[in-house]
Amino acid sequence: MALIVQKYGGTSVGDPVRIRNVAKRVVATLEAGNQVVVCVSAMRGETNGLVELAQQLGGEQPDAREFDVLLSTGEQKTIALLSMAIGQLGFEARSFTGGQMGMHTDSDFGRARISDIDCSTLRETLDDGVIAVIAGFQGVDGAGNITTLGRGGSDTSAVAVACALGADVCEIYTDVDGVYTADPRVVPNARKLHSVSYEEMLEMASLGAKVLQIRSVKFATQYGVPIHVRSSFNDAEGTWVMSEEDVMERLVVSGVTHKLNEAKIRVKGVQDHPGIAGKLFAPLSQAGILIDMIVQNLSSDGTTDMTFTVSRAEYNKALEIANAAASEIGASEVEGDQSIAKISIVGLGMQDHAGVATRMFTTLASEGINIQLISTSEIKISVVIEEKYAELALRSLHAEFIEDGAAEPVADVP
Amino acid sequence: MALIVQKYGGTSVGDPVRIRNVAKRVVATLEAGNQVVVCVSAMRGETNGLVELAQQLGGEQPDAREFDVLLSTGEQKTIALLSMAIGQLGFEARSFTGGQMGMHTDSDFGRARISDIDCSTLRETLDDGVIAVIAGFQGVDGAGNITTLGRGGSDTSAVAVACALGADVCEIYTDVDGVYTADPRVVPNARKLHSVSYEEMLEMASLGAKVLQIRSVKFATQYGVPIHVRSSFNDAEGTWVMSEEDVMERLVVSGVTHKLNEAKIRVKGVQDHPGIAGKLFAPLSQAGILIDMIVQNLSSDGTTDMTFTVSRAEYNKALEIANAAASEIGASEVEGDQSIAKISIVGLGMQDHAGVATRMFTTLASEGINIQLISTSEIKISVVIEEKYAELALRSLHAEFIEDGAAEPVADVP
Repeated sequence: MALIVQKYGGTSVGDPVRIRNVAKRVVATLEAGNQVVVCVSAMRGETNGLVELAQQLGGEQPDAREFDVLLSTGEQKTIALLSMAIGQLGFEARSFTGGQMGMHTDSDFGRARISDIDCSTLRETLDDGVIAVIAGFQGVDGAGNITTLGRGGSDTSAVAVACALGADVCEIYTDVDGVYTADPRVVPNARKLHSVSYEEMLEMASLGAKVLQIRSVKFATQYGVPIHVRSSFNDAEGTWVMSEEDVMERLVVSGVTHKLNEAKIRVKGVQDHPGIAGKLFAPLSQAGILIDMIVQNLSSDGTTDMTFTVSRAEYNKALEIANAAASEIGASEVEGDQSIAKISIVGLGMQDHAGVATRMFTTLASEGINIQLISTSEIKISVVIEEKYAELALRSLHAEFIEDGAAEPVADVP
Repeated sequence: MALIVQKYGGTSVGDPVRIRNVAKRVVATLEAGNQVVVCVSAMRGETNGLVELAQQLGGEQPDAREFDVLLSTGEQKTIALLSMAIGQLGFEARSFTGGQMGMHTDSDFGRARISDIDCSTLRETLDDGVIAVIAGFQGVDGAGNITTLGRGGSDTSAVAVACALGADVCEIYTDVDGVYTADPRVVPNARKLHSVSYEEMLEMASLGAKVLQIRSVKFATQYGVPIHVRSSFNDAEGTWVMSEEDVMERLVVSGVTHKLNEAKIRVKGVQDHPGIAGKLFAPLSQAGILIDMIVQNLSSDGTTDMTFTVSRAEYNKALEIANAAASEIGASEVEGDQSIAKISIVGLGMQDHAGVATRMFTTLASEGINIQLISTSEIKISVVIEEKYAELALRSLHAEFIEDGAAEPVADVP
């Protein structure tokens, strides 16, 4: 008997008919001899409707505590409806809000972090042969206040519960059927991966692949619970996210990702002595601006250029702060550019293969694409290029590293 | 400093604009130097929407526990929105679900009864100068399951909390501006009562006046908390429901009520010996049929006729059961009639005034209205008449007992 945690997103439970379909799938999993915990999101559109209601109050930013009380009703509706639907199929299900299931968090409303999960109620429920239906995205703090985990929190809830229960697998049902080597809307030749390591998935999630929330992957990595990302609309096997040693199909490059809506800021003519970088970046981080890549180059005249990227939404604020900081540290000029894109290749195989970077740069050069910034990690190479070349870059890198001949598996390291 | 519990119904919090208006009223009550607890219903239409969603699942009767999980989201939305709106006015409010506020009930899902209220959290909140916004209609059972109190439960929540906190008053805001001497849609001369005793209100509530839920009046009676029924759309004083000794304006008859959708069943030729009535009514009550009036008359031939009334919705079921029971007890015939109405006059003043019944019967007779059944209590006389005369009866009794000269106050009993 396996213990399976299943998570269904908002589209999968978008209306009563779909909820009934989910109920059938859950029951089939139970009947196959498993214990089942089901974690659900709010019905598609529900959360936006609640946000709109709050906006219609017309005042300033609503109170964070109360906003969580409001949003958490979305998932509560779904757990009730799904439990009813399972009951109507003749099986017993019991619903649990975040508080009822023992999901304890800190009090950072709107983006709470899980502190611990008391699984005793869920275990009792499962031991009774009952299906446990839990609300994703929500918990309670130490004082019993309702909290929410922030965007993508339902993935995190599901994986965290799977880890706490020591589940055999956490199945993430979504409206795509797995993790692809690139965005299929941009790269028609993109193909579904059978499996991918936690580390690769983390890089892909943070780089713009929207399949799986990055926090949930971190949990799974820590506890070693395999995640199976698959479609709720068919029975096809999806993509397994698992430990490196369990990944069968090991490619040099597992995925090519792109991230638009980036912006670049360059601070020129900075005196090159210790402490300068801190003076530039401290005010930015104090303002809560997330800085992605940072690159520093020494100029011939002994000064240095600092370039960094931020999300386009924070560009104006970041530029203003950078200008103020620049005049303080005696920089000569600040330049900004909002028409950039970040392209990355990700793969565990890179660790063992020299020359991947060279192949990447050559491929881009042969398409006439200029590289503005480069940043690398053990299993990833990212470059910033002009935005208009993003799709071309993606397709040519996918062809180079992943399509046909390019995709030969890496031999296992002896 | 007074402690005031306010309750706003679904129409009063029907949309964000109205919620803002409620927030202003709540804040004004606080600024007048009071501590305030606000109890709210689901937004108008919300509960029906949730019921429809459950129906769209298309299966059999949904699980009662899960139905309560679903319905309770309605009030949870309102408490969040109202707390936000109060916050946006610059005042601090904190929302509480039934579980969070310590509303403990039994486990009879869908119609749970309050077992006790742990007021410690509410008291702390009030002592901090914070407005407490609580969800009506809902609680938790001993195992932490969400429960609902059934129809009209929000009134009950508000009054029960007012009693538990020892509040100075429980204000029930609704879409009418008080309790009337009769339904103004039927009796144009009906007028608003300044005050009415708990006992009279109980009789009026159970007889069809829809202003205040009967269970809430029972709570208030027990703990002596005054209820002020008033409109959320203006500042006019409404009607006070309070102890008999506090009621200033003591009339012979405080109200004339009517109840349609009644039906009558007559079992004829019953042998008049002990135990017969039990044999007739036991199967009816086992079937969950609520019997209202029961009248028994002795015939000249030594047999007896039993007549009773039920709601029209249960008429067919009741008739079937009565027929079966009749043949068992050797009754000669069973007759039914669905076109009846019950008309009642209610008033504490009746206790001291002989002749009220006579005046009632004479008034009806002078309009040519035949009385089919009579039932009396200390402060109420009810008659069953042909349905088509209901409005005429109501208007003539109202004219006789309440309008102009008729309404002279009763002298205080020495």
